[in-house]
Amino acid sequence: MKNIFTNKRIFDASPAASGGFVWYIQRDKVVTVQSPATVANMVCGFDVLGFAVEAPYDIMRIQFSNQPGITIINEDDFQLPVEPEKNVAGAALLALLAEVPIPDIGLEIRIRKQIKPGSGVGSSAASAAGAVVAANYLLNEPFSKSDLVRFAMNGEKLASGVKHADNIAPCIYGGVTLIRSIFPLDIVSIPAPELYVTIVHPQIEVRTSDARSILKQNVLLKDAIKQWGNIAGLVAGLLQSDYALIGRSLEDVLIEPVRCILIPGFHEVKERARAVGALGGGISGSGPSIFMLSTQRNIAESVAQEMKAIFARIELAHHTYVTSINPAGIRVIES
Amino acid sequence: MKNIFTNKRIFDASPAASGGFVWYIQRDKVVTVQSPATVANMVCGFDVLGFAVEAPYDIMRIQFSNQPGITIINEDDFQLPVEPEKNVAGAALLALLAEVPIPDIGLEIRIRKQIKPGSGVGSSAASAAGAVVAANYLLNEPFSKSDLVRFAMNGEKLASGVKHADNIAPCIYGGVTLIRSIFPLDIVSIPAPELYVTIVHPQIEVRTSDARSILKQNVLLKDAIKQWGNIAGLVAGLLQSDYALIGRSLEDVLIEPVRCILIPGFHEVKERARAVGALGGGISGSGPSIFMLSTQRNIAESVAQEMKAIFARIELAHHTYVTSINPAGIRVIES
Repeated sequence: MKNIFTNKRIFDASPAASGGFVWYIQRDKVVTVQSPATVANMVCGFDVLGFAVEAPYDIMRIQFSNQPGITIINEDDFQLPVEPEKNVAGAALLALLAEVPIPDIGLEIRIRKQIKPGSGVGSSAASAAGAVVAANYLLNEPFSKSDLVRFAMNGEKLASGVKHADNIAPCIYGGVTLIRSIFPLDIVSIPAPELYVTIVHPQIEVRTSDARSILKQNVLLKDAIKQWGNIAGLVAGLLQSDYALIGRSLEDVLIEPVRCILIPGFHEVKERARAVGALGGGISGSGPSIFMLSTQRNIAESVAQEMKAIFARIELAHHTYVTSINPAGIRVIES
Repeated sequence: MKNIFTNKRIFDASPAASGGFVWYIQRDKVVTVQSPATVANMVCGFDVLGFAVEAPYDIMRIQFSNQPGITIINEDDFQLPVEPEKNVAGAALLALLAEVPIPDIGLEIRIRKQIKPGSGVGSSAASAAGAVVAANYLLNEPFSKSDLVRFAMNGEKLASGVKHADNIAPCIYGGVTLIRSIFPLDIVSIPAPELYVTIVHPQIEVRTSDARSILKQNVLLKDAIKQWGNIAGLVAGLLQSDYALIGRSLEDVLIEPVRCILIPGFHEVKERARAVGALGGGISGSGPSIFMLSTQRNIAESVAQEMKAIFARIELAHHTYVTSINPAGIRVIES
């Protein structure tokens, strides 16, 4: 048995790791996390604002292994690849391990996915972010949240070809997050009041690449001004718990009018949700899921009923969730 | 002498006025206000974010007159027109009087302008907004702030051809204001921490129409995304007194790169201001004034020294102000 699999302190002199961090391997430690779904592209906050929800979430369990490198065990039916470099959790963990100055370290991760891939609520981000957050706890937290976002973005690169943090950031930070800048990475937590979230996932495929390609590269300055008036209003509404202002600001004049054509029933869902009291909402990520925000759980439940009725009428298989904004992000449930 | 010039209560049944408001004319009442300069187009907040400053300000004194309509007396050397329909304060007052259900009312306003017209710090807005705020006090406040903005916008229409509220809103509401939407008008106060402001007014003419005409009608979506990431960061920074975040967010990738060519010394002012500790800043309104924000008065004073040195070197007459954000907006100083 190798050294690192006995309990051991390793004083690290490598500048790659956090200065002076005492690496300590506790051989029999096991960490289990809940990694939640997330909503990116929060209406007027395209590419910059997102939030985590309480449900659905993936469950991931990580421990040290005698086998150097990453061992992935899928405990669900999605038949995702187990080769680390082909698996989003694996790709994120490989990026993390590259900054752990312990040779031949081995990690085993068991993944029970409950967030359906391709639904537009950050399934790949939950895998990538959950894996590195769990590994960070296993290693006694050598890395900052910002490091973890950086590692997890490698998972997103594998999933979509782009190193984006739209879902990673709210998954790791919790609540509503703003990605003010991607280079250099600048993530800002936006403390939000209690808000209930209704999500409907119509069972159609919207490829992220298609959703990207139909966007215009150029927009009218006057429309961009409307959009940044709304995002400023939304941030002010969230920070001041001004629900009416949040509702007035949940308007997207640039992206939604183009992308909504990919999602049958979109306008009706929005209209009916507002009619029964929702503040507003829009496309989750690049779709096909649609989310709506409400101030109360019973309104969020009425919204779900409306969504079900609409998709039943147009005969489209669908699934709804009634949940709330998750202020914590990924939770360690066992350690 | 007409009725209205004796002290008199008038019970109003006109639906045009605030419901049930008791109109009361106090013949000998005099109201004096300080109406401050304002900075519109707050960096990334083009067309939507602005703020009021403590100095400079105009002084306006209003009272009832035996002469029906508006009488304007200029107590400065700017030789602005005294015909109400040609004067921005007059145009704003005419809009207000149109909603006062008292026949043959007469108002006399004395204006001592201290904010130089054409300097880019809301000189016309100070006249228009100051006049209607003073008149509202004189009439015992029948109108809401939102009404007053609406009246004052008629002054801006006269000054620039456009009914904009970029300077009117912060002048009337004080502090930092967001115009989330212009139709319908939606003004949001953004409570800001204490911030010092240095303004330099280089004595060149930048016509608002020129500053508008050089802007591109179309912008790249990716630049617009950067801009709304920054405005979201700026609003969050202001509301949470996060000075570092305010500083990082004071970046304009769309308007400033085009308009700064109209202002000699612009880049040097920005660079030197940051070098001596300013958080950042940009073009005030459509120029030619430049403003910089600082956390402390002594930094704001160093910024002024740098500005003076730069414009002295390029031999351009200029004037600087060291002031602070004015949380109150227009102040009644005598009533």
